[in-house]
Amino acid sequence: MAKDLDTILHSREADFQSDLIDWLKIPSISSDSRHTQDVHAAADWVVEKFRSLDLEVELIPTQGHPLVYAQTPPVPGAPVVLVYGHYDVQPVEPLDKWVTGPFEPDVRDGNIYARGATDDKGQVLTHIQSLAAWRETGQPLPLQIKYLIEGEEEVGSENLQQFLKTESERLACDVVVISDNSQLGDGKPAITYGLRGIIAFELHVDGPARDLHSGSFGGALANPANVLCRMMSELIDAEGKIQIPGFYDDVRELSDAERAQLAKLPFDESRFAKQVGVDALVGEPGFTTNERRWARPTLDINGLTSGHQGEGGKTIVPSTASVKFTCRLVPDQNPDKIAEVVKERIAAICPPGVRHRLEVGHGGGGMLASIDSPYMAAAQQAIQRSFGVTPFLIREGGSIPIVAEFQEQLGAECLLLGWGLDDDNAHSPNEKFCLADFHRGIRASAYLWEELAAKS
Amino acid sequence: MAKDLDTILHSREADFQSDLIDWLKIPSISSDSRHTQDVHAAADWVVEKFRSLDLEVELIPTQGHPLVYAQTPPVPGAPVVLVYGHYDVQPVEPLDKWVTGPFEPDVRDGNIYARGATDDKGQVLTHIQSLAAWRETGQPLPLQIKYLIEGEEEVGSENLQQFLKTESERLACDVVVISDNSQLGDGKPAITYGLRGIIAFELHVDGPARDLHSGSFGGALANPANVLCRMMSELIDAEGKIQIPGFYDDVRELSDAERAQLAKLPFDESRFAKQVGVDALVGEPGFTTNERRWARPTLDINGLTSGHQGEGGKTIVPSTASVKFTCRLVPDQNPDKIAEVVKERIAAICPPGVRHRLEVGHGGGGMLASIDSPYMAAAQQAIQRSFGVTPFLIREGGSIPIVAEFQEQLGAECLLLGWGLDDDNAHSPNEKFCLADFHRGIRASAYLWEELAAKS
Repeated sequence: MAKDLDTILHSREADFQSDLIDWLKIPSISSDSRHTQDVHAAADWVVEKFRSLDLEVELIPTQGHPLVYAQTPPVPGAPVVLVYGHYDVQPVEPLDKWVTGPFEPDVRDGNIYARGATDDKGQVLTHIQSLAAWRETGQPLPLQIKYLIEGEEEVGSENLQQFLKTESERLACDVVVISDNSQLGDGKPAITYGLRGIIAFELHVDGPARDLHSGSFGGALANPANVLCRMMSELIDAEGKIQIPGFYDDVRELSDAERAQLAKLPFDESRFAKQVGVDALVGEPGFTTNERRWARPTLDINGLTSGHQGEGGKTIVPSTASVKFTCRLVPDQNPDKIAEVVKERIAAICPPGVRHRLEVGHGGGGMLASIDSPYMAAAQQAIQRSFGVTPFLIREGGSIPIVAEFQEQLGAECLLLGWGLDDDNAHSPNEKFCLADFHRGIRASAYLWEELAAKS
Repeated sequence: MAKDLDTILHSREADFQSDLIDWLKIPSISSDSRHTQDVHAAADWVVEKFRSLDLEVELIPTQGHPLVYAQTPPVPGAPVVLVYGHYDVQPVEPLDKWVTGPFEPDVRDGNIYARGATDDKGQVLTHIQSLAAWRETGQPLPLQIKYLIEGEEEVGSENLQQFLKTESERLACDVVVISDNSQLGDGKPAITYGLRGIIAFELHVDGPARDLHSGSFGGALANPANVLCRMMSELIDAEGKIQIPGFYDDVRELSDAERAQLAKLPFDESRFAKQVGVDALVGEPGFTTNERRWARPTLDINGLTSGHQGEGGKTIVPSTASVKFTCRLVPDQNPDKIAEVVKERIAAICPPGVRHRLEVGHGGGGMLASIDSPYMAAAQQAIQRSFGVTPFLIREGGSIPIVAEFQEQLGAECLLLGWGLDDDNAHSPNEKFCLADFHRGIRASAYLWEELAAKS
């Protein structure tokens, strides 16, 4: 006889968790060519996982890291869900700041610590384990699930974007389900209806042909590091307003209604400041902290490199200086157009005596979903049933560039069901994921298949 | 019977050169604690060299790297010369830019390539080999020579400064001879009568307690790297004028007479620009290139460090950013006073939302020597005899902080006899020293002992 879904979800928790630990042990850093084999190993791991659930599965090679595609049988009359996630992870330096190794998953105080725990292995796995639970009930899955797990999310998903353009038929679906972001807070599950876009840059300022003695030469020529600092300071003012003509042209402004709704969300500024470890929150004038991080564009330096960085001093005029920076974009800002205005501005402010090279990296648009679709209602109910509270409707400052592509290429609604927390240290040392949320996520996912089927 | 000095100088060239190669093989990088033993080995090498010339020699321990002191017997009625130099060298990165290993001396096109070749092992050795030549003549040395060779010139000579304060009697002399800088150009020997001072800084700007996801947090708090770039851009303007109240207060301005004399020096701006590999020479308005690098103060960034520097991208708000920078000073600017005004300025411009830490490093004043002393005349004749041309009188942009101390503590004149060239890549990859200049330097040094004795 068929077993009860809740019983299975409860009894299998240890197995669900040991699967997660196995996957997290694989250092699948997609931006680092030294880890190419590991990235493939992480793809193979999820392929095997799907095989163990008797899914049709395919490892799809790309010009970069492979895509993993799997699907359950069609269910006539029921909606089709596409689950998207990624098996690649961010770099791990500074290594010395990790309490335990980034790829030696460690459970402490109810959290599992490892690179990829929350971003995204732990979260995407919830939608795979929920299927494992359904399968064990012996009951038929009430809808068709397609899984698309990529290995280049942390480097811009460019090959997946190509795949979407050519394979929209295979991927045809009614709704895309993604868990790759955060709840509003501990015990405050949320559905994210808005995301920021992103465009990445690397600027090199080249001066003399070699590092020069700052005594014999200093003062007689432009110092590339001095110039780089000046140029960056001219792109954004002291208050955080970006000083690039055309940058704000297409920004979709917040409506008064939405600002009022965002203002109602439970949020403690001083607790937030304390959590990130700063004395004061500083940002674009005229906006609240949540508006600044969710609904306003930014220009943040991600890395600076020039000259001597080791111990002690080295009295040189460095021959070159470089900066990695990213702009977060809001809906209606086009990454390609932003790349153009940044290019123009940088060319305009680059002074004589140095040469500059601007590399434009991965980009993607922002997203705003409808908050009153039947799918949204189904997700709210599934989360309510699993977490015991009604989820908040929020926006998120992060970027999942592919989400905009899903909307465009597949014409599908997107449900962003974040199981993580803002203090999970995604992209930082000691990344973690709350194991209770991992299991609540699996349960909510299992219910979601029911709720979505019921809405059709 | 006594041998002829010129004959010996000529016949010993191969031996002089092989000594240099031995010394250059020792990686005596004083700023890098991993090389402490090598630094000591370089000191031992010169101790042995002095022993082989039957000098009284002493290895003097300090809180840092040891001093090497040696002296020839007193010569009543003759002047006493103190030869100063250093056996420590600069760091060597970027290693991949060296054609041959920095500590594998290689002779190419009449130059010897190695870290320390020109700065300063190759140059100070000329004054030791000149003594070796004199010794071989069997003739008595016409004056007393004291040698003081230190191992901390590249890190500020702090322990030597202490030593000078307590040992001025032992070091008592009429003139200090230093070869640690450059000629005006190839075939243009020069005596340097002016040097710039220096003061070094390292500024850290600290923001969030850890690197943060630039999506979830970007825009909501001050980015330490953005702030660092802005702060540096506020310390010096686009034209190279330093924007620090009080910075220029004590600057000794160039006299019209000196500006006219400097303008007469053979100097080809476009050749200079080509030599350093820039399209345009940029600097403080109203001054020539030589004035800018020899007689005007500077603020040059030596290194920038923040966030992600590896391959690919990392979308973070870095928790911290740091910059190493040095100010070159001109005569009458006091390094301690400059440190104070820089501190005040940085504290004044550090914005809310970040914390800053300013470390003040090694410093030293500038120097201006009398250009019509008998010692200067003796040096001009010695160089004329060896190089076959009259030396130019120039200033230099580099700093030998200890020179100001010699003048102050010993009341002695300083003769800066640079045998190097501006394109010797001191402090850069592929540092070199012209072997012809090495031997001309030895010869000039040998003549200098005669000429100085004749002036007394």
